[in-house]
Amino acid sequence: MSVLRCPNNPIIRPEDVKPSRDDFEVIGTFNAGVTRLGDEVILLIRVAERPTNKDSNVIPIAIYDSATDNIITKEFSEDTPGVSFSDSRMIITPEGKYLTSLSHLRVAKSKDGIEFEISDTPAMSAANDYETFGLEDPRIALIDDTYYITYVAVSPLGVTTALASTKDFNSFQRHGIITCPDNKDVVIFPEQIDGKYYALHRPVTPLFEKYEMWIGESPDLKHWGNHHHFMPLQQKAWDSTKIGASATPFKIDQGWIEIYHGANEDNRYCLGAVLLDSSQPWKVIARTEKPILEPEADYEIEGFFGNVVFSCGLLHENEKLKIYYGVADTSIAYAEIPLQDVLENLKS
Amino acid sequence: MSVLRCPNNPIIRPEDVKPSRDDFEVIGTFNAGVTRLGDEVILLIRVAERPTNKDSNVIPIAIYDSATDNIITKEFSEDTPGVSFSDSRMIITPEGKYLTSLSHLRVAKSKDGIEFEISDTPAMSAANDYETFGLEDPRIALIDDTYYITYVAVSPLGVTTALASTKDFNSFQRHGIITCPDNKDVVIFPEQIDGKYYALHRPVTPLFEKYEMWIGESPDLKHWGNHHHFMPLQQKAWDSTKIGASATPFKIDQGWIEIYHGANEDNRYCLGAVLLDSSQPWKVIARTEKPILEPEADYEIEGFFGNVVFSCGLLHENEKLKIYYGVADTSIAYAEIPLQDVLENLKS
Repeated sequence: MSVLRCPNNPIIRPEDVKPSRDDFEVIGTFNAGVTRLGDEVILLIRVAERPTNKDSNVIPIAIYDSATDNIITKEFSEDTPGVSFSDSRMIITPEGKYLTSLSHLRVAKSKDGIEFEISDTPAMSAANDYETFGLEDPRIALIDDTYYITYVAVSPLGVTTALASTKDFNSFQRHGIITCPDNKDVVIFPEQIDGKYYALHRPVTPLFEKYEMWIGESPDLKHWGNHHHFMPLQQKAWDSTKIGASATPFKIDQGWIEIYHGANEDNRYCLGAVLLDSSQPWKVIARTEKPILEPEADYEIEGFFGNVVFSCGLLHENEKLKIYYGVADTSIAYAEIPLQDVLENLKS
Repeated sequence: MSVLRCPNNPIIRPEDVKPSRDDFEVIGTFNAGVTRLGDEVILLIRVAERPTNKDSNVIPIAIYDSATDNIITKEFSEDTPGVSFSDSRMIITPEGKYLTSLSHLRVAKSKDGIEFEISDTPAMSAANDYETFGLEDPRIALIDDTYYITYVAVSPLGVTTALASTKDFNSFQRHGIITCPDNKDVVIFPEQIDGKYYALHRPVTPLFEKYEMWIGESPDLKHWGNHHHFMPLQQKAWDSTKIGASATPFKIDQGWIEIYHGANEDNRYCLGAVLLDSSQPWKVIARTEKPILEPEADYEIEGFFGNVVFSCGLLHENEKLKIYYGVADTSIAYAEIPLQDVLENLKS
């Protein structure tokens, strides 16, 4: 696999992004949805923030409070009995779990796809009961002249996926929750197939403890049904514990290519590829046994949550995959992989 | 609350139902969907079976095998290291979980609503990958001239809800999975409200460990979206750990009445009532603080899984609730409660 990492990597880092409030700091800029608008590449970046810490004895967090329509802060002490900080992404307390950062979505634009102009203000931020812990991991599908965005809406009610749309990345319209707790990694196919829309998604069964990929269909993008499980984990492999769709699928002569992510027992996240039948997208034709991209560079191995490459979008142009991907839940990196290399690594 | 239990209770017991195979025994007949067809009351009963046990050293179970389209049997020994039988409903092994019984759906008919003629053969039984552990807990909504059935389809892929329909309870048509793992307790409102269908459902968020009630909408009963959380647990109450819809909602002058179930920390299941706004059914107007029906009779307290009253259907007739309900995951009982009693116990 010939992976050409950008020498400028990471191309977008937390220090490149202005916090949404003076008393906040940006700790993560990662997992961006990707598309083109006119002659520009658009990233819709997940920006993770937390209150600036002035007291080293406490850990402050931010939460959206729907009752007052405000972002409020809360502090936890490492000494408090019954409070656990063992996962850098979460604070576990007797009264419930909290996330250590609050994410919103931010637009960045670029002519060359490498140097981005990043907006100083959020494009979409927490605004309802399903988003009190933030908006995460957007994917973008361009259908006709509208960009449909699926993003993870997180709150104590669960990990859901919501649908929004925009025509210009200036104003955004919300269309409600499309997948129920816990279900994320939702990517919508960018065209109807035999008169229906399709989406890949990743529900979780707590009873049987499975994190595998499903596909659903819709007449209108807002209502989904006829769900099918279509892709299991690989045993004793890089994608042995969790898998989920990453980028919006794109079409080639042989079918649909989906770049998906997988984790192993050590929570090491890599990207792989799967080829789906062009008219029956729930049929897996072939799958890469080995990752097409795995954490190898320093910036992929170390960070807020290390050993992670995680994509929410790519451009398929000039027979190349131009992959934008989150590294270590901290920054955004860019790499190019020839499509031919991916195809040669697919196994039936 | 004036609860009139039928003196014949339980009105349907496992020994009243013919096993689907000579080598199986029926261990549960419970959680029945309820409706009327012509001048008869129809129950669609969940019938739980297991292979007849000839060797006391092993526990045999039945599973649907989709590869061969057959029900196969499997045996577990209580002595096997790493195998747990601590929950009577489940066998936990290093390779995964199994259910101790395989359920199918069976039709029973009655003129008086008490004495039922039970079909000798299943109406719907496991037939695909989502049903390998069986079909459970059906609810029936009559819309125009079609009966829509939501039932729990269980397999190692998760606990899902599937939609089926019938006009006569002889032939049934499947319409696929409508809620993804894990999501059950789905009841469909029996008419459109402002041009949309609505359903109550109960997704599970493993991350935040919540079992609460949501509502979704649909243009066609098959595709669902715009999901909203609408009813939380009650703290330190009979419904403090899990709640879910039980019977198909019915309309009265004041709005929709939903009879729901709840469990407390001891897994004691009771029934309560909630009044929803007639044109905005996601709005809770009032809720019973205390149960309207709780396990008190011997047959409700003792059985396969004791201390459980659990309804999947009722008839609202003559200002009474005629409730059919599963008792101790073993049998079906019948009770009548005056609607007025329920209304008087609702608190805003």
